[in-house]
Amino acid sequence: MTKKKNFRVIALAGGVGGAKLAYGLARLLLPEKLTVIVNIGDDFEHLGLKICPDLDTVCYTLAGLANPETGWGRIGETWHALESIVELGGPTWFRLGDRDLGTHLERTRLLGSGRPLSSITKEFCLAWNIGQTILPVTDDIVPTIVFTDKGVLPFQEYFVKNKCIPKVKGFEFSNVNKATPAPGVLESIKESELVIFCPSNPWVSIDPILAIPGVREELLKLTVPIIAVSPIIAGETVKGPAAKMYAEMGIEPSALAVADHYGFFCDGGLLTGFVLDILDENMSSEILSMGINTSTTNTLMQTNSDREKLAREVLEFGKEIMNRNKI
Amino acid sequence: MTKKKNFRVIALAGGVGGAKLAYGLARLLLPEKLTVIVNIGDDFEHLGLKICPDLDTVCYTLAGLANPETGWGRIGETWHALESIVELGGPTWFRLGDRDLGTHLERTRLLGSGRPLSSITKEFCLAWNIGQTILPVTDDIVPTIVFTDKGVLPFQEYFVKNKCIPKVKGFEFSNVNKATPAPGVLESIKESELVIFCPSNPWVSIDPILAIPGVREELLKLTVPIIAVSPIIAGETVKGPAAKMYAEMGIEPSALAVADHYGFFCDGGLLTGFVLDILDENMSSEILSMGINTSTTNTLMQTNSDREKLAREVLEFGKEIMNRNKI
Repeated sequence: MTKKKNFRVIALAGGVGGAKLAYGLARLLLPEKLTVIVNIGDDFEHLGLKICPDLDTVCYTLAGLANPETGWGRIGETWHALESIVELGGPTWFRLGDRDLGTHLERTRLLGSGRPLSSITKEFCLAWNIGQTILPVTDDIVPTIVFTDKGVLPFQEYFVKNKCIPKVKGFEFSNVNKATPAPGVLESIKESELVIFCPSNPWVSIDPILAIPGVREELLKLTVPIIAVSPIIAGETVKGPAAKMYAEMGIEPSALAVADHYGFFCDGGLLTGFVLDILDENMSSEILSMGINTSTTNTLMQTNSDREKLAREVLEFGKEIMNRNKI
Repeated sequence: MTKKKNFRVIALAGGVGGAKLAYGLARLLLPEKLTVIVNIGDDFEHLGLKICPDLDTVCYTLAGLANPETGWGRIGETWHALESIVELGGPTWFRLGDRDLGTHLERTRLLGSGRPLSSITKEFCLAWNIGQTILPVTDDIVPTIVFTDKGVLPFQEYFVKNKCIPKVKGFEFSNVNKATPAPGVLESIKESELVIFCPSNPWVSIDPILAIPGVREELLKLTVPIIAVSPIIAGETVKGPAAKMYAEMGIEPSALAVADHYGFFCDGGLLTGFVLDILDENMSSEILSMGINTSTTNTLMQTNSDREKLAREVLEFGKEIMNRNKI
């Protein structure tokens, strides 16, 4: 596969895990053929700045600006503004790097001038030489709220401030019913030839995308393959609290639970393919019995070549499902 | 003078020049005896942040955090947030360093929570181990507007964005009549034993302080010496547009013009002493004839020891005027 694939792919993504697969896909597809639809449920205001963690992680990753060690934040980052805030006794639970701050400052300025987030993101992608299309799923504010045994917490307070320690009881995507998809979201889904749910957290990365009125409905109309990549490997997550969330919600965390999750969320009919890790091979037959094609591979992405390899396998799997359907 | 002076001194200051003399005074006086009343006419909002250039310059200087090369901004500063903003095509005419940004972020956060600027400044001074009292002259917003041949400009647009190139025609301190002095300003003037107008810009640093209702009136009630240090040496300013402003306002820039300025502004009765540079010695007699004591010295402050030396001379001059009055 030296020639870049030219079929239109949509990737639904949260932060780090989603960005990794998106990066792999970007290496294989013509830039104009890849659209990444990104979760904005994690977005919040901090120190007067609008912060969009998933959007920035995806953009920084595709732009080659991401910190390769953390997966989030920027390469060559410094922390001098934060050090000043520490000196002054200000809030430092959310770590803002200096280079990253520039993004938040400029985005906040543009939002203040009335520009929608999707339009600002488009401008930033141009500035960062990102050829792919990156869309926040909505321009509306739909903050994820986490119901926990320590009370109701805004997402970043659960995730960063409380380090995911409180036990989750449920989630709410505030004002989701009033939200509309950002310009381009439904159109790109309509025109897609393959949809990929990146290995992001089903509860708080993919669900908030699917919950925006119109998104799930548009996906359900598709006849092209919709493939999810499991973020859970051998009952654990590479990063983030997805497995812990499943356990706390009374579900054994597993690839099977993820396949079931998307099936349940979308009334059984959404996924046509599921990619699970070789460590979870034993679950393949049960997922198959749900009417979902499966592909088993090494899903852990540690290097850029891992990302590309997994992306290639997902694309080939998509092609395979398409061909099967044609027969 | 090894023992620190223990009489109560008020210094009125703008940015760099004012901060330098304040630094010299801080070396000589017991910390609790020095109050610096700072101009806030230069304050503005930029990128959603409240920025107080003079207040920060005075604080950073007294805290030993100032960049010794520029006189403004912080030592060991980096510019990564600004570089990000440059990448994104955002406004960069006002250069915000990373460490400095931390100050603006935390101040903006605290102002947003309803705290007045003077209270925040007090907290910051504690955090920065500044023993002296630094007071913004008011907690109200009184932005300096510059009338120029290129139109009416907010101060920082004149000063930084347009590099003081437009010709000034006049100044306005917006909403000044509705402003009240910050807590402690009038009290500290009342209790002062010596008042010093630092070598700051008379038009846009000292006038906006004197213009806050109550400040000039309280100063006029004093019987203790009020000494101004000329910011103009041999017709020029060390830094900033004061000389250019005098010329454009139709007044020949000189130490005499400064002495006259404060006399005029305060109805002839405000100053009891005036410190001018040895290069301007020839103007001494004319200033004396205005009923103002004069002291001639080297007023250029290039090193910390220059700052201390000038501060010592101003304090001695103040003592001398006091003793003269006693006779």
